[in-house]
Amino acid sequence: MLSEDLSISLSEHKTRIEQIRRQLKRGRVDALYLTNPTRILYSTGFAHISTERPLAVVIPQRAPVFLLGPLLEYDHVREESHLIEEVFSYPDYPGRIHPMRHFAKFLIKKGLGGSIIATDSMDGAAGGWGYRGPSLKDLMPKAKFVEGRDIVDRLRLVKSKQEMRLLRESSKWSEIAHDVLLENVKPGSHDALLAMKASYEALGKMLRRLGNRYRQLKWGLSPVVVGFRGQIGAGSAIPHAVYAKKKIRRGDVLVTEAGVEIGGYTSELERTVMVGKPSSRAKKYFDTMLAAQDSALNELRPGVRCHRVDEVARLTVENSGLSASLRHHTGHGIGLDGHEPPWLDPGDRTVMTQGMVFSCEPGLYVPGYAGFRHSDTVAITKEGIDFLTHYPRDLESLTI
Amino acid sequence: MLSEDLSISLSEHKTRIEQIRRQLKRGRVDALYLTNPTRILYSTGFAHISTERPLAVVIPQRAPVFLLGPLLEYDHVREESHLIEEVFSYPDYPGRIHPMRHFAKFLIKKGLGGSIIATDSMDGAAGGWGYRGPSLKDLMPKAKFVEGRDIVDRLRLVKSKQEMRLLRESSKWSEIAHDVLLENVKPGSHDALLAMKASYEALGKMLRRLGNRYRQLKWGLSPVVVGFRGQIGAGSAIPHAVYAKKKIRRGDVLVTEAGVEIGGYTSELERTVMVGKPSSRAKKYFDTMLAAQDSALNELRPGVRCHRVDEVARLTVENSGLSASLRHHTGHGIGLDGHEPPWLDPGDRTVMTQGMVFSCEPGLYVPGYAGFRHSDTVAITKEGIDFLTHYPRDLESLTI
Repeated sequence: MLSEDLSISLSEHKTRIEQIRRQLKRGRVDALYLTNPTRILYSTGFAHISTERPLAVVIPQRAPVFLLGPLLEYDHVREESHLIEEVFSYPDYPGRIHPMRHFAKFLIKKGLGGSIIATDSMDGAAGGWGYRGPSLKDLMPKAKFVEGRDIVDRLRLVKSKQEMRLLRESSKWSEIAHDVLLENVKPGSHDALLAMKASYEALGKMLRRLGNRYRQLKWGLSPVVVGFRGQIGAGSAIPHAVYAKKKIRRGDVLVTEAGVEIGGYTSELERTVMVGKPSSRAKKYFDTMLAAQDSALNELRPGVRCHRVDEVARLTVENSGLSASLRHHTGHGIGLDGHEPPWLDPGDRTVMTQGMVFSCEPGLYVPGYAGFRHSDTVAITKEGIDFLTHYPRDLESLTI
Repeated sequence: MLSEDLSISLSEHKTRIEQIRRQLKRGRVDALYLTNPTRILYSTGFAHISTERPLAVVIPQRAPVFLLGPLLEYDHVREESHLIEEVFSYPDYPGRIHPMRHFAKFLIKKGLGGSIIATDSMDGAAGGWGYRGPSLKDLMPKAKFVEGRDIVDRLRLVKSKQEMRLLRESSKWSEIAHDVLLENVKPGSHDALLAMKASYEALGKMLRRLGNRYRQLKWGLSPVVVGFRGQIGAGSAIPHAVYAKKKIRRGDVLVTEAGVEIGGYTSELERTVMVGKPSSRAKKYFDTMLAAQDSALNELRPGVRCHRVDEVARLTVENSGLSASLRHHTGHGIGLDGHEPPWLDPGDRTVMTQGMVFSCEPGLYVPGYAGFRHSDTVAITKEGIDFLTHYPRDLESLTI
């Protein structure tokens, strides 16, 4: 067993299953059938690489949790999950007999043939990478399938103490990784290589400190990611740039990003960084972005509706005459997924409550010139917020 | 513009759009509505990070290609795509007005309100990260939506000359990255750090050689990934392990993986590596795995059905008395996705033709002990195969 510090405990997973079962009972639903890897991880602690091969976890209201999946995952589940009590495996996809037919047969054998089943996929499969198949619904005509995504997702809105501890640990390493990145930035360096070097160094620091307590749960070369994702100079004006090998030049505006996976959870720390003395133009955008973030941060507290946070940030930008540079809303929930509800968006009327965690990141973008965005991860407390990411936000500290 | 060498040319993308339109015409379909990022990349060359924000590319049979997406992507599309002629953007998700309502309105304005529309998502959205919304189908009751995934996916089955060039370039850098990995392996090193160090060094070699010709299209810290993904010692018995920070020890069996993204395309090179002189037990599994791969490679040629390749590999393993160690089929197609059809699986009766590209990777797994798998990427030629990955497969070369 892992130290409880850096992963969600078995007992918390058991509590989550009980919370799910209570919802099933209230809704008169016999079982929850999950295919999304994040929902499976949240419910059971089992992390897997989702491919074309169908895999589902079933949580019956009154019977042990079981998994349906490819033989390839059999030993993996057996080794890693103390909560999934039974595993049914099929040889492979597509197979002589399609996996979905095996699933239907097994569910019927389990007595669920005529049941009400809540699910996050009416097809019965996550459906990645060229998957094709008959719908589980069609193969089990006597069962009734109902929408079940919110059964898990509403539990994820408010973070538990254990989740908060993982998010804090993640934020701490994001800060360290960001320090390493900035120590390495200099004109002439290439963004992609710099990102890899800093991520490697920060990963080394983290693994040396955390030792065997650390275990990566999500697929990816490195659980520590720090870099620019192409947001260098004019590239910083494209908030969802993918990547570009570009040389950093004096005068560039950079937008950084740092995120570290701890027990499946991730935080977000982003900064607008100036390479050399900022121009008055850059300064104006930077100051407005910072004022917008400040106003949003001041509005984040229990009892306030999410859309309000976006409104105040937007108003700050409008008052500076720069609203033509807005390209997105103010932030999003964060936890097991990098983006999750609620949204700091005009369309989200969710009332914030203690334990919700958000990114707060209003941004300004000028095509062909630069982008300006800080992102902090903050938790709603009893009266306001706690910063999970602690990092300088002022222009002077971020000029290199 | 990029050098044509390392990305698919605009003219090839235009050809792909024409091939799609011919299928639409034959099927009496008015437009293809795509939400999957790989299909969008294949059709238009536009790469984006797929999130909760709906984004779709529409290819009408007789009008220019357009994109529906968040404002956040507007400048990105304008800068990067010469093929997408119009962009309709909505403020953000979820929005005061849901993006799907904007999409429906725009599609109706475009004259598609009463049309037959093929799609890869009946919901109208890729649906990641907490997306919720009304189904496009329900918002456009006068349109008829039909299954459209195969319109793009059948074009992807056989690779063009340009695709083959990118896959060869990818394979070449996978080989180099694998060399760097093996040079760095020594007892006592940590798998995760070793992987990051080797990936960083190999990325540096690649960027120095390819310079500005190289451009990463897929989201990820590094387009060069080489490492073990936790497949160290007993961990190698779990084919889809995620990652584990473990020290490599003398006597360990390791399963490596190397993949490099070039113009969106990826190859797969994996090797079973022995740390120190292999035991007779390890040797038996290694030899059987190698014989199974040899028999599969011999069966890969035009005119043969895919399931046949899996059968001969399986038979080789059965004849060695080790069939209890099989956990998955023999391989999969590979291209823009890491796994794509056809499948080297008992259930796939596709007849292989020149230009298909496969991973060939039968594996043997002994829980608690070790796993044994090589993976090579091969192209079907006029008479047999071409190895895209050239790398030693024998035990002696892979003992360190």
